[in-house]
Amino acid sequence: MENFVAYNPVRLHFGKDCLSGLTTVLPIYGKRVLFVYGQGSIKKTGLYDEIRTYLDAIDATVVEFPGIRPNPIVEDVDAAARVGRDNKVDVILAVGGGSVIDSAKIISIAIPVTHSAWDFYTKAAKPKSSIPLVSVLTLAATGTEMNPFAVLSNHKTGQKDGYGNPFCYPKESFLDPELTISVPRDYTAYGIADLIVHCFELYFGAGDASLTDRFITSITREAMEYGPQLLENLDSYDLRARIMYAATMALNGLTGYGKVSGDWAMHSIGHVLSLLFDTPHGASLTIATPAWMRFFKNQIPGKLSALGTELFRKPLTADETIDEIEHFFRSIGCPVRLSDIGIGDDQLDKIFNGFISNHVGGACMKIAETDYRKIIDLMK
Amino acid sequence: MENFVAYNPVRLHFGKDCLSGLTTVLPIYGKRVLFVYGQGSIKKTGLYDEIRTYLDAIDATVVEFPGIRPNPIVEDVDAAARVGRDNKVDVILAVGGGSVIDSAKIISIAIPVTHSAWDFYTKAAKPKSSIPLVSVLTLAATGTEMNPFAVLSNHKTGQKDGYGNPFCYPKESFLDPELTISVPRDYTAYGIADLIVHCFELYFGAGDASLTDRFITSITREAMEYGPQLLENLDSYDLRARIMYAATMALNGLTGYGKVSGDWAMHSIGHVLSLLFDTPHGASLTIATPAWMRFFKNQIPGKLSALGTELFRKPLTADETIDEIEHFFRSIGCPVRLSDIGIGDDQLDKIFNGFISNHVGGACMKIAETDYRKIIDLMK
Repeated sequence: MENFVAYNPVRLHFGKDCLSGLTTVLPIYGKRVLFVYGQGSIKKTGLYDEIRTYLDAIDATVVEFPGIRPNPIVEDVDAAARVGRDNKVDVILAVGGGSVIDSAKIISIAIPVTHSAWDFYTKAAKPKSSIPLVSVLTLAATGTEMNPFAVLSNHKTGQKDGYGNPFCYPKESFLDPELTISVPRDYTAYGIADLIVHCFELYFGAGDASLTDRFITSITREAMEYGPQLLENLDSYDLRARIMYAATMALNGLTGYGKVSGDWAMHSIGHVLSLLFDTPHGASLTIATPAWMRFFKNQIPGKLSALGTELFRKPLTADETIDEIEHFFRSIGCPVRLSDIGIGDDQLDKIFNGFISNHVGGACMKIAETDYRKIIDLMK
Repeated sequence: MENFVAYNPVRLHFGKDCLSGLTTVLPIYGKRVLFVYGQGSIKKTGLYDEIRTYLDAIDATVVEFPGIRPNPIVEDVDAAARVGRDNKVDVILAVGGGSVIDSAKIISIAIPVTHSAWDFYTKAAKPKSSIPLVSVLTLAATGTEMNPFAVLSNHKTGQKDGYGNPFCYPKESFLDPELTISVPRDYTAYGIADLIVHCFELYFGAGDASLTDRFITSITREAMEYGPQLLENLDSYDLRARIMYAATMALNGLTGYGKVSGDWAMHSIGHVLSLLFDTPHGASLTIATPAWMRFFKNQIPGKLSALGTELFRKPLTADETIDEIEHFFRSIGCPVRLSDIGIGDDQLDKIFNGFISNHVGGACMKIAETDYRKIIDLMK
């Protein structure tokens, strides 16, 4: 086991009707609220009105920043930070999925400064403070609600990248599984895939941490058991709850303690697809994952075989493990090849160039530029 | 799944030589330090000198309170609180095992008040503040290093009881597995048993939280796999590390989220044995656990069978599960019957009376006073 520090200061409020707790929690941080949300689905579902009721109940002064897009971009974050700064907000309330909460994390460290938030990503600047962030999650997938990471795209530089800093932890996150019942079947499946691939990224990271690996396979098995049931019963609060909790635990620190790091090459590959084709994050990962595993199967046959044997509770070789995982993704309606999302051979050079400009690779299993074509071929 | 709040503010510093971090961490809370420890084993191992070096390096003003006993008593806590109060300490540094850290938690809430700490246990008083607590753990067992619970005995009232309050969380806990290498074989085994029974208490608590149950069995399997290896290799840093981390995770919240509560009757029974016969905590639990399981096996046959089947990875009935668990405890040298610790039939009335005065029972599986004799018989 590697040395580590385990620390996660997020207070997670989980369960039915937990949002009413906002009236107690928000005033702890202040009454001038920057209310950040996405492209209006919360207005259709009635969640917007519910939130406004809570804000009214505490006499909050509310500034809204709506319109955060999926695969969020740095321009929106910079614009929102300007609004927050000009209005001297005390606290950010972010309501939405991974895109909204990721954006809000970067807004929270960008409000106290005047430069672009992208400077954090290029390491040109380091945050020294943040505006407290309270999040309300509406999509079970990324785990952003209980970690300090945020992914942003910069179309000017052609990059999509992750960033993490302790200042980016939400102070409080509210998870009512009922809010995820309106998520359609495809995005529900992408969320299940996303949480599973988070587990894989950590599993294939370097370092021998046996209990952490047990937690990783526990979460993966939970998703593989209840995910398909949920897709047959999208209205089930109980199944939504199990998947929502699994997604949170897949990336809140627990799956990494005692390891050197996660690998993150599967995400690195997926980010390029999302950036180029606006592929939903989870769908990009189910294409990237089998290709990554097949590319490395001769280097880590034992690790792949042990994973499959534990997940499926029968002895599996590395090849059989990859086949079973691919079969699982396909069974829940996720794409596993570029052709499944309509990307033909004419796009492969574009993907190759995206790999180059995004320095595609992992922290542990090294990928050279000369490997890029092979990996892309495995996604065809 | 039940609604829950997941929150654990402890910063855990884990690994080889992590104690040097004390010189960075302690000054955050202040320089007037109440240094609490046990009956001198830290002087024999050299840990005392190491700690004093760190305290000197930060020019700390140190007041010592040594002599905390195993199965700690409220009189020691009250005396230490008086010392801390009189010396206006900023921070408590507790160095030891569960007894020392449990005591320090209650000292931390007793310093700001003038009444006896036992008033917290009787609910006559509630803490409103606490002195920050930094802990250094020397025994892998109770999980106290990352939770807000503390067990104390009061020999005047004949009670041993647990208490928990958010003010009792350590701010920081330092876990260097190397410090546990000096723990002798028997106490190492009791620690392994203790962490396993923590898992069982939560497993048999009410509520259907599937991922939490997976975490519980993951931790139990980790202890059952590496525990026996450690007992054959007491000097192994690697095995000490795996068991130390498992013990922390067994009782830091993770094993309870989404459940109504743990049961805690096995601990309730064990506490009586410790109180009456000074039985080491872990050893009291390995006697209590099989008896508790046999008493309830007809009420929860499916739950017992599922536990055994997951832990031992072969289909087991409830009876077979209990037999395997008892066999495991015996195989690591823990007592599983009163006769194993030299308690004969002449003591059974005393135990019965202890059950009565301590209101022995669990939060979920109800035990009536009329059941006490049956449970005691199962421990014979």
